[in-house]
Amino acid sequence: MDIKRYEFNPIITCRDAEPSNKNFEVIGVFNPGAAEYEGETVLAVRVAERFKDSGDGHIKIPVVDGESGLLKALDIDKGDMTYDFSDSRVIRKRESSHDFAYLTSMSHIRLARSKDGVNFKIEDRPFIFPKNKYESFGVEDPRITKIEDSYYITCSAVSQYGIVTALSVTTDFRSYKRLGNIFGTENKDVVIFPEKINGRYFALNRPVSKSTGDPVIWISESEDLIHWGNHQVLAGTRKNFWDSKKIGAGIPPIKTGSGWLELYHGVDDQEHYSMGALLLDSSCPSKIIARSEKPILKPQENYETEGFFSNVVFPCGAVEKQNQLYIYYGISDNSIGLATAKVEDILNTLV
Amino acid sequence: MDIKRYEFNPIITCRDAEPSNKNFEVIGVFNPGAAEYEGETVLAVRVAERFKDSGDGHIKIPVVDGESGLLKALDIDKGDMTYDFSDSRVIRKRESSHDFAYLTSMSHIRLARSKDGVNFKIEDRPFIFPKNKYESFGVEDPRITKIEDSYYITCSAVSQYGIVTALSVTTDFRSYKRLGNIFGTENKDVVIFPEKINGRYFALNRPVSKSTGDPVIWISESEDLIHWGNHQVLAGTRKNFWDSKKIGAGIPPIKTGSGWLELYHGVDDQEHYSMGALLLDSSCPSKIIARSEKPILKPQENYETEGFFSNVVFPCGAVEKQNQLYIYYGISDNSIGLATAKVEDILNTLV
Repeated sequence: MDIKRYEFNPIITCRDAEPSNKNFEVIGVFNPGAAEYEGETVLAVRVAERFKDSGDGHIKIPVVDGESGLLKALDIDKGDMTYDFSDSRVIRKRESSHDFAYLTSMSHIRLARSKDGVNFKIEDRPFIFPKNKYESFGVEDPRITKIEDSYYITCSAVSQYGIVTALSVTTDFRSYKRLGNIFGTENKDVVIFPEKINGRYFALNRPVSKSTGDPVIWISESEDLIHWGNHQVLAGTRKNFWDSKKIGAGIPPIKTGSGWLELYHGVDDQEHYSMGALLLDSSCPSKIIARSEKPILKPQENYETEGFFSNVVFPCGAVEKQNQLYIYYGISDNSIGLATAKVEDILNTLV
Repeated sequence: MDIKRYEFNPIITCRDAEPSNKNFEVIGVFNPGAAEYEGETVLAVRVAERFKDSGDGHIKIPVVDGESGLLKALDIDKGDMTYDFSDSRVIRKRESSHDFAYLTSMSHIRLARSKDGVNFKIEDRPFIFPKNKYESFGVEDPRITKIEDSYYITCSAVSQYGIVTALSVTTDFRSYKRLGNIFGTENKDVVIFPEKINGRYFALNRPVSKSTGDPVIWISESEDLIHWGNHQVLAGTRKNFWDSKKIGAGIPPIKTGSGWLELYHGVDDQEHYSMGALLLDSSCPSKIIARSEKPILKPQENYETEGFFSNVVFPCGAVEKQNQLYIYYGISDNSIGLATAKVEDILNTLV
């Protein structure tokens, strides 16, 4: 099908963002939620920062204190054999079954604005910065859903307590209000549908089991966006497909004449992240009408396939402009790409 | 303090329960929720069963088909090197990071009734038997909360999709109604408070993180018992204490003049499960007033410390009779014990 990457991708990189304080360096600007607001396209981007290397054989971990809400540096000796430093993104306790004890970077959410949906100016200051004990390692991967005049933003909040999904709301993209944790640990990739369906709100989410079961997409319902229940599996992984290992929701579902279009990410056995689509029933979104046999967007350009954490396209937001869907996607935990397609063309791949 | 085990513990063992079908053997009757109903004490007990050994080098896994709701046997060759059979309770895929791919037994919920709270007659037929795709490996560890005239029963539902908490309700302990999954995977040990507090229902729950963080007790709130939100950490593990490794709610909170009394289980570094108490603020149950320095009940009798999966006391239900709390606890995933104590005496240990 005809999906077009913007010629000068990536549209935003870490070079475009000022660090939030002078001791930090920005190592990634990626995974953007998107919305149209007052004639502009607004991206809520994830900015990952770390302390500049002191060169003294120690590593400084950025942590927000849950009580005071203040940023602190946790100093760890790289020679400390308690820890495994082999993955530069995380610090693992050697004797633990957990994926990590600390993250080496901390993410916050920042806004970028554009008149044309292509050329963005990223703000110098954070929009949502980690503040409470559920966010002490960072807030990540925002998704924006407009409901009436409010923009609801879901983020993964990461801390020693695990990974929860926190909800915030803004009406002006200047201030916002925190609405609490809507999914407990461990759950991420939460996208909220833009309207009630048969009297209920719905959200796709991606719980992770320790005991058993692949990370897959679930659907839950709510009457008030705060309290969620009736959790059900929506879509699983598929052996020998592009989404064989894990899947998660990407872009908040888009209403079409054929049903709800969900652009999601799938991970294959080679750990490549691609984007495909689910078509969900208009009046019963827990029912799948169609699903991509092949990815609609997969890592293939140099800027997507090169680098240390390469081969990731990770869609988080989209807006419609002149009959085209502008899809904003994270590239390899590092920068942001833009691809455009007609909704109709995507739907045609699902027939 | 003065907690008394019943002289002839255990009060229920697997010898007291008929298997639910002739191909099964009962391997455990344990972890009972408890309620008073029409002058009787009713226990909702977990009955674990497995297929009798066929002696042909194969193992039959009991699984309920998610579509038809029918019980099936999954046949696995014990020589199949894909799997690790070293823990007799589970079958693990060798190349997986998950705890299990299958359980070797399947649990259902059965009722036992007593006039005196001591001598129980267990029913011959299951009460809640696994039925849907979230329960295909079994339903486990019921807790009962009476709210007005209804008895709400939470169970862990186990399947290839993980471990969720399902809610059911009964008014007569003969029939019941399923109310759906109130917590998605992975979450268990859910106990609901018996009344609204400041206009909201509350539940303690125990999510498990794969990425990071010990399994600890969280508290969540709801307006309708079906949809839950505002998930917060209530109590964590404590290094060098009896609850150093993991903790989970046990008995649905008991209203006292001093606050909500929660009897919970804690696991130490030796994997011993003991019972202790939390005292929570009457009007704000996310606030801890006091917590047991030492366990109130720990494995010490022969029937608690012997056997293959020994050293587990696991409280799930209690009723008050003649100014005594009758505490029913699972013993080592095998049988049921009774211990009695005055609520006042437990509270005094928390001063």
